[in-house]
Amino acid sequence: MSMTDLKQTTISPVETQISPVAGFSVAGLAAGIRKSGRRDMALIVSDRPCAAAGVFTTNLVKAAPVLLDQQHLAQNPAGIRAIVVNAGVANACTGAQGMQDSITTADHVAATLGCTPADVLVLSTGVIGTLLPMDKITAGVTALADALGPEGWADAAEGILTTDTVPKTACVSVDTPDGRYTIAGIAKGSGMIAPNMATMLATIVTDAALDSPTLQAALSAANGQSFNQIVVDGDMSTNDSVLLLANGASGVGVTSAEGLDDFQAALTEVCTVLAKDIVMDGEGATRFITLHVTGAADDAAARQVGMAIATSPLVKTAFYGADANWGRILAAAGRAGVALDPAQLALWIAPGESDCADGLQLVAAGSPTAYSEDAAAAIMSSPEVSARLDLGQGAGQSTVWTCDLSHEYVSINGHYRT
Amino acid sequence: MSMTDLKQTTISPVETQISPVAGFSVAGLAAGIRKSGRRDMALIVSDRPCAAAGVFTTNLVKAAPVLLDQQHLAQNPAGIRAIVVNAGVANACTGAQGMQDSITTADHVAATLGCTPADVLVLSTGVIGTLLPMDKITAGVTALADALGPEGWADAAEGILTTDTVPKTACVSVDTPDGRYTIAGIAKGSGMIAPNMATMLATIVTDAALDSPTLQAALSAANGQSFNQIVVDGDMSTNDSVLLLANGASGVGVTSAEGLDDFQAALTEVCTVLAKDIVMDGEGATRFITLHVTGAADDAAARQVGMAIATSPLVKTAFYGADANWGRILAAAGRAGVALDPAQLALWIAPGESDCADGLQLVAAGSPTAYSEDAAAAIMSSPEVSARLDLGQGAGQSTVWTCDLSHEYVSINGHYRT
Repeated sequence: MSMTDLKQTTISPVETQISPVAGFSVAGLAAGIRKSGRRDMALIVSDRPCAAAGVFTTNLVKAAPVLLDQQHLAQNPAGIRAIVVNAGVANACTGAQGMQDSITTADHVAATLGCTPADVLVLSTGVIGTLLPMDKITAGVTALADALGPEGWADAAEGILTTDTVPKTACVSVDTPDGRYTIAGIAKGSGMIAPNMATMLATIVTDAALDSPTLQAALSAANGQSFNQIVVDGDMSTNDSVLLLANGASGVGVTSAEGLDDFQAALTEVCTVLAKDIVMDGEGATRFITLHVTGAADDAAARQVGMAIATSPLVKTAFYGADANWGRILAAAGRAGVALDPAQLALWIAPGESDCADGLQLVAAGSPTAYSEDAAAAIMSSPEVSARLDLGQGAGQSTVWTCDLSHEYVSINGHYRT
Repeated sequence: MSMTDLKQTTISPVETQISPVAGFSVAGLAAGIRKSGRRDMALIVSDRPCAAAGVFTTNLVKAAPVLLDQQHLAQNPAGIRAIVVNAGVANACTGAQGMQDSITTADHVAATLGCTPADVLVLSTGVIGTLLPMDKITAGVTALADALGPEGWADAAEGILTTDTVPKTACVSVDTPDGRYTIAGIAKGSGMIAPNMATMLATIVTDAALDSPTLQAALSAANGQSFNQIVVDGDMSTNDSVLLLANGASGVGVTSAEGLDDFQAALTEVCTVLAKDIVMDGEGATRFITLHVTGAADDAAARQVGMAIATSPLVKTAFYGADANWGRILAAAGRAGVALDPAQLALWIAPGESDCADGLQLVAAGSPTAYSEDAAAAIMSSPEVSARLDLGQGAGQSTVWTCDLSHEYVSINGHYRT
């Protein structure tokens, strides 16, 4: 065994500023789709073909770009060159014309970059039921191609936002015995406002080299632990998409089991940071909630209970009111569709993002403890609160991140469209 | 065939004032459980044994009275004499002491009336996780027994309320060739406020004669078309119960197929009126929404889609804002877990409680029509709005009643418990 084999791989902490990723150039700008004049388009281009992976909304009402990307990924999973994104119009519920518009967008990107349409993925987010302003889209693509550069990530991260209040970016570098590679991602979150925004997008790139099936498996696994574990309001949009491109330009190949484990860890970390950023910027959110369900029969059961709690309007309004309203958490668990024994339930809360090991126990054996209401109220008033519900059954567990349900959520989503 | 056989049965319109029901005496009063001094207990007594039926929450976290009633109905389905109700304390998540308290309550009612404990059903609603104030409960039972009378329905209807703003009562009389019988019911609705109210109760009595299995089948069917078709916030409480007693004191037996059909129709009507009253008095509700899903593969699929729409926070806030935000309705349908073709969807809206036959069509073949936004806004501004979503698949249909999600809902449910 040589000394080289003994080198350790190190994964950097996640940075919010994205360093250049070898072989990728990006841009974001205002193409005039959004009336506000904010940036509303982004383009991400690799100088060489990328292995590509995607996860998409399971909503049966899928926007045209989702359907087109699924086709392109199936046809050309190892040759993707570009992702073009527009905000302002979701191109969902737009029929045959909507699909033609997504095709035309990909065609124009391909012609501009000198690749083929199947090399291009298209993402749209914004108003449902409205056709894309194709003159602005095509002019925007032309301008984006002129603006491409390795430092364009901040502009691109702005160009994909709708009602988000802050851009969402995450970047890690991984130092391996074979060299360094980078994973960088941008995301936009929950903003289903008037008339109807279609919601969560993320685009992640790496200059590591992986084949497409490996990349898809890694993205699906990372997604399952990050974007699939967040709840703002429990609705699911027509456009939700997460795309991952790997162009290999770092010269670092990810093939060994250890190398894959490191890549998976780094990718999951990027996705988790972006997912939490989406929750923290959730519509009207005033409190970030980490919800651990433990002691379930299996992880899937734990997640099902966690999702029932995280989507409960009663639970979410109680968190808004800083009310340690444990009965609502137990009641939501009881209707989650998972077998449980109420007499085995235990519940803790803690401030911050915590595993609740040192938390305040509110419920033991299904009944309230003699906890201090003042202590509970102090914890619940924290801007970040964690709770752990133990089902007392087995080793299954799941962590879900969510936010509260506030007056502001109702204001944002109850707005007249006029 | 005699002339008697040709007599028609007629079912009266539903009245909100409850006429005396033969053999039943009722009372409601303030026993001091609720701090406000409002009425907080009710007692319903039959002068003879009743056939009885019940439907209960499917939440696995069930309050003690739910568990006790399920036992008593299983042991003694043809001999129930009384239902005692308290508001203010739900007796849920109260462990062994909670169950003992429900038993003690039934014991005390039985001793007071001179029957056996298994003849008594117990309902509780109110705060979760708090023990019943048994001194007030037993004193209340004694006082209720003294106050019993045939005209006590209005007092009883008040005695079961928590945060409801109005009592909910419904009464029909059925004139049959064999004589007249009455079905009367009282209900309380959605009020899961601080710290945690456990929510929907209904008690229905009739002086018709039916056996217990028939009664249970009729109640289950009526419940499926009424209380199970309403949504306030999609949460499900630990205490939800609907009880039905039949004492036969009218002398009218319901045994023939035609007689049963009439009874079923009248019972369903009573349950439907009470269910709609619960929605109209939903926490913070400003708009009553009737949602028809048609053209589904079967009725169950239609209901599943209807429930996904009715529980969607985005749909409910759009109704609050009087926003004809059809994209949210389609997006909720698309994630309902029912197979559907987005290109087959059609959507209409109409003011009032309507089948939407003369409504405004917003969506055809999955895409928006060229509808007038002004016309849509005018409809959505109505205090009662109906919508029909057609899936274009089959003959399955379901109607769901719900309300909007308002600032007031958040205020009520976000209140500090202190």
